[in-house]
Amino acid sequence: MSPPAASTANGSNGSNSNPEFTSIPTAHNPHVRSSNPYAPVGDFLSNVSKFKIIESTLREGEQFANAFFDTETKIAIARALDNFGADYIELTSPAASEQSRLDCLKICSLGLKRSKILTHIRCHMDDARIAVESGVHGVDVVIGTSSVLMEHSHGKDIAYIKKTAIEVIEFVKSKGLEVRFSSEDSFRSNLVDLLSIYSEVDKVGVNRVGIADTVGCATPRQVYDLVRTLRGVVSCDIECHFHDDTGCAIANAYCALEAGATHIDTSVLGIGERNGITTLGGLMARMITADREYVVNKYNLKALKDIENLVARAVEVNIPFNNPITGFCAFTHKAGIHAKAILNNPSTYEILNPADFGLSRYVHFASRLTGWNAIKSRCEQLGMQMTDTQYKECTAKIKALADIRKLAVDDTDSIIHAFHANLHGEAQPLMEGLSAEEQEMLDLEGKKAVNEGAANGEVATKKRKVTA
Amino acid sequence: MSPPAASTANGSNGSNSNPEFTSIPTAHNPHVRSSNPYAPVGDFLSNVSKFKIIESTLREGEQFANAFFDTETKIAIARALDNFGADYIELTSPAASEQSRLDCLKICSLGLKRSKILTHIRCHMDDARIAVESGVHGVDVVIGTSSVLMEHSHGKDIAYIKKTAIEVIEFVKSKGLEVRFSSEDSFRSNLVDLLSIYSEVDKVGVNRVGIADTVGCATPRQVYDLVRTLRGVVSCDIECHFHDDTGCAIANAYCALEAGATHIDTSVLGIGERNGITTLGGLMARMITADREYVVNKYNLKALKDIENLVARAVEVNIPFNNPITGFCAFTHKAGIHAKAILNNPSTYEILNPADFGLSRYVHFASRLTGWNAIKSRCEQLGMQMTDTQYKECTAKIKALADIRKLAVDDTDSIIHAFHANLHGEAQPLMEGLSAEEQEMLDLEGKKAVNEGAANGEVATKKRKVTA
Repeated sequence: MSPPAASTANGSNGSNSNPEFTSIPTAHNPHVRSSNPYAPVGDFLSNVSKFKIIESTLREGEQFANAFFDTETKIAIARALDNFGADYIELTSPAASEQSRLDCLKICSLGLKRSKILTHIRCHMDDARIAVESGVHGVDVVIGTSSVLMEHSHGKDIAYIKKTAIEVIEFVKSKGLEVRFSSEDSFRSNLVDLLSIYSEVDKVGVNRVGIADTVGCATPRQVYDLVRTLRGVVSCDIECHFHDDTGCAIANAYCALEAGATHIDTSVLGIGERNGITTLGGLMARMITADREYVVNKYNLKALKDIENLVARAVEVNIPFNNPITGFCAFTHKAGIHAKAILNNPSTYEILNPADFGLSRYVHFASRLTGWNAIKSRCEQLGMQMTDTQYKECTAKIKALADIRKLAVDDTDSIIHAFHANLHGEAQPLMEGLSAEEQEMLDLEGKKAVNEGAANGEVATKKRKVTA
Repeated sequence: MSPPAASTANGSNGSNSNPEFTSIPTAHNPHVRSSNPYAPVGDFLSNVSKFKIIESTLREGEQFANAFFDTETKIAIARALDNFGADYIELTSPAASEQSRLDCLKICSLGLKRSKILTHIRCHMDDARIAVESGVHGVDVVIGTSSVLMEHSHGKDIAYIKKTAIEVIEFVKSKGLEVRFSSEDSFRSNLVDLLSIYSEVDKVGVNRVGIADTVGCATPRQVYDLVRTLRGVVSCDIECHFHDDTGCAIANAYCALEAGATHIDTSVLGIGERNGITTLGGLMARMITADREYVVNKYNLKALKDIENLVARAVEVNIPFNNPITGFCAFTHKAGIHAKAILNNPSTYEILNPADFGLSRYVHFASRLTGWNAIKSRCEQLGMQMTDTQYKECTAKIKALADIRKLAVDDTDSIIHAFHANLHGEAQPLMEGLSAEEQEMLDLEGKKAVNEGAANGEVATKKRKVTA
């Protein structure tokens, strides 16, 4: 994929202090006054401004079809997540294979500074006995509670689940470790069964209960309702895990936090079973928009792109072109109206500041949708001054050629250079290698734009801009 | 990216009648009884079961950084969307460039069977006069209404916006065409201004009003609240347009429909400004889960993969690995527990039926997370019968080797073949090209699994499965 023809604009200075990019003031954070007349009113249930991340690239991510993490790769990922500031790092069960057990021991011995280590096991004493010897800070216990999983997966009933859960929880706690109990496929489980199990494990002192949308069927308002209900039933923390089969994993995580969940499971690029779970980067995009201060001060956002590249290489995938934040065009602006406004004030068409992530903004200026403000900005980058009428004429030539063929950034630059040279009496063809027909079209379009501009003022030029 | 080691299971028969894949019975469709005790109660506001698509690959998508659609490509995309059953196809403004105008005329003359053609213009009479001559069925009018856009983009005030909007709407209607009026950046606009404009254009007979999350800042519950409020103010249809900067574009579309929106804007793979908008495929994944009958009967879902490939080629991107439905692993199952349950009953770990989209399911069976049920299934595909103890021994050998190196599907098959041959007295090395150490490890793991199996029955084998 070729990079887009582009000019940088403002985004690369690395400053976090751009006043245009304070977060959207919803009232999730009761201390932030809302200028938005229909933002939710102050909501003390919400943990949008104090959430924690359980980063599961080394557990859920290992279940991704292409994942084969050798020990060195696991260590590199764990160190990168620690450097990022992940609150927890979750590892594959040491009961899964001998190498999994050895890797678990190894990662626990790294002495990571910011991340606690968890492992994730079936709700079974055999697994728990192995897990507590692996050096982890805590154990995440899971069992399927939907009728379809009870029938077709483990074959146990609710009474058995409760009894085993309490046994495992008490055992893990007796070893001085954190313990979480999660249902699996929570959104296809019976609500009464669910609340009854959560209530019992809360009473025996579990640290967190977990809700898991294992098949990716949950919708945001369902999530909000279930978490809010659960918030009234248990006093412990609430962790949520969302698969992305129907594209709602980031939104569901956000709604869970609004309803009182405390911890969100993520993986880098979302890797996991099938098309994966809430992506670490996507969650950062969502949360920084809600509470920039909290996110910027807690997580090392400038490390995000490197972590994504590390994991992408390890599992042999490309960063999706449309990935939030790091997708190749996440901060690229193209249509004339967008480009003009962005050049005036970036927050017109950006809710995220690329500088927060150590990235740059691009204004695309080599297409039929290009407006003259983008060309003016490019000319200024190239150190060339013209009058507005001349910028418009030059833009008309670029648009005319872009109607015929795809333009690379150097095509556009060469038209600008030649146009500028011609203005100063140095006769140059506007572009090398054009057919006579293409050359004629460029000449005609330039004249037409100037004539229209002279006759109608602004409107004639604006007429050629695309709506945004 | 190499394809995952895989075995197909059930998904490729193309049947739509699998009773395991009826949609999740929420009560959005009041005629569907809910078996889910905390699904929303019957909701007559919801259009989840009667939504329409405004497909904007040829408008919003043309604003994608890498998009350069020549006329032939535009025609191919338009025909593909018509064949898919898109309710509307939206085209770039004919005022954007001469070629845009010619392409608009051309596509309107194709005589598409299922899709109506719209074009999308600035709220300005100059653009409207060109649009109504382009052969479209309707015109989508847009103007920025947030303070930031009013100040930094077009520089007009609310009174001007109302006056111009009414003039444009009445003009387009006088030509016998459909007309939509949309605000831009609706979620950063003043609510009173918004409702006041929408109410006035509704009175002059606009066909639809549009809400646009132009910068991708909206959250699902905000969307629900705004659409629900607007539903009480206007009697016309409501169209919604969501950018995906913070990963909520699909979820927001769903919540908008729950609140009474009628039309959702999509583009193929979501292509558009920055990282784009609600993806056509992602919306299909979300909606089929809510109302399978409506979606399957209305849209030609088996054409989705080809349309995505067509557009991906045209804009030179890869299908994201984690794309809903068509991502390379969207229906791939890996962990032992998942694989076992999927082989028993696909709906355990799938909310979508790959056959609805003409696709297949894969069970990954060549990793350290592999369970013996997946190996048994593969043996059956290869026409080899063994006892359960033998399947488990063979699985242990495969897992042991997967702990050391990444296995391709033919590596696994060769271990299975050799193991099976050895059982029948034909001495063969389990795998060619192994070191003495690797060969010894395979032998040991096999014996260990059998011994544990003999001593402990099921548990010993299960102990080696990963939690899911």
